[in-house]
Amino acid sequence: MPLRMFDLAGAEPDRRFSPYCWRTRLALAHKHLAVETIPWRFTEKDAIAPSGQIFVPVLVDGGRWISDSWAIANYLEDTYPDAPSLFGGPSGRSLTLFYSRFADGLVAAIFPFVALDILHHVAAEDRSYFRETREKRAGTTLEAFVADRDARVAAFRTSLNPLRLTLKAQPFVGGAQPLYADYALFGPFQWARCISPFQLLEPEDPIRQWRDRLLDRFDGLAQAAPAYDV
Amino acid sequence: MPLRMFDLAGAEPDRRFSPYCWRTRLALAHKHLAVETIPWRFTEKDAIAPSGQIFVPVLVDGGRWISDSWAIANYLEDTYPDAPSLFGGPSGRSLTLFYSRFADGLVAAIFPFVALDILHHVAAEDRSYFRETREKRAGTTLEAFVADRDARVAAFRTSLNPLRLTLKAQPFVGGAQPLYADYALFGPFQWARCISPFQLLEPEDPIRQWRDRLLDRFDGLAQAAPAYDV
Repeated sequence: MPLRMFDLAGAEPDRRFSPYCWRTRLALAHKHLAVETIPWRFTEKDAIAPSGQIFVPVLVDGGRWISDSWAIANYLEDTYPDAPSLFGGPSGRSLTLFYSRFADGLVAAIFPFVALDILHHVAAEDRSYFRETREKRAGTTLEAFVADRDARVAAFRTSLNPLRLTLKAQPFVGGAQPLYADYALFGPFQWARCISPFQLLEPEDPIRQWRDRLLDRFDGLAQAAPAYDV
Repeated sequence: MPLRMFDLAGAEPDRRFSPYCWRTRLALAHKHLAVETIPWRFTEKDAIAPSGQIFVPVLVDGGRWISDSWAIANYLEDTYPDAPSLFGGPSGRSLTLFYSRFADGLVAAIFPFVALDILHHVAAEDRSYFRETREKRAGTTLEAFVADRDARVAAFRTSLNPLRLTLKAQPFVGGAQPLYADYALFGPFQWARCISPFQLLEPEDPIRQWRDRLLDRFDGLAQAAPAYDV
């Protein structure tokens, strides 16, 4: 039985846009593991109840349910040790946790640019849930939240300088080839391009070029997903 | 002949406060390498001219002069491969570059809190140089630059959340034991406490506790340096 994974989907079932699910998709591909993805909407909490979690990704491997993208990455590394390593060894695993947490911070940093665009793509039954929970968190309407995004994008780009300088010096944060640290960081950028026409990164940005290299990996797995050309 | 290292010093020769030099000090200790540090002031460019650089750290190993903290870390790893690894393997080395660049960003983020305090500690002959170059960069006087630091510190602490969450989960970013990634991140915090009474981190902060664990390493090498109790 192939692995199965609950994957956040929009109104179009093929529009998969969770930054956390994308990490897991690429981690599975890195491990050469086939997966059947199951489109899942925010309000389908019951479908993933056996995981003990209300968020995706949730991975189902035979009778085991694993949730949380970092826990899933560790599970894959431990359960499939003969496939290429996601971390590059024990020290690499420890060093990757900060990347995972830093990437979570990127999701939070990108959200004020794309929040309203997400609303346009979520499934009809998720729309009220999404607006209510996110407006409560933002403390304002989604429309007001993104209104000044053009003025804010330069500061966002500048905040990425440490990553930019790293990717000027080497093709991936993991070195000549990508590791899970790359997939963790890629998730937020893939999320953004899957649901928003807003140009977060300039074409000549080394981060954009790194993102494009990851889009091409695994026979263009991430490139093939419905997304905007930004 | 032991290694020699040019190390930024203040008016008191023992007050060593370069965030970049501290990385190198701990990297040398990690490699079990004895070093003779040479107090150096900002304006002593001639003393380090053979390195081709005008900044410290500069390491002198026999006839070789090596500058730039990241280049020095790589030099030590390659030249002393039998000593404990700074990176934990080839993947770890690649994964560490982003830590180094991120730590550079921390220096920039901490500077607006401690800029004026540095002036109080630099050597008499460095004072004009320091004020002029730093005020030009800041676009204002050092006094004005730090004036609202109490109001800014909460946002700074929040910006460290990804690191905080990592250090809640494991003792060091390198895992159970520190690696160069830890020393790179430690540098800016050690710099701050060596020259400023300003409390950047709250006592219960996991980042503060991690910093204190690093102060204790190598027989209290960093703890022994003249510094403020913050």
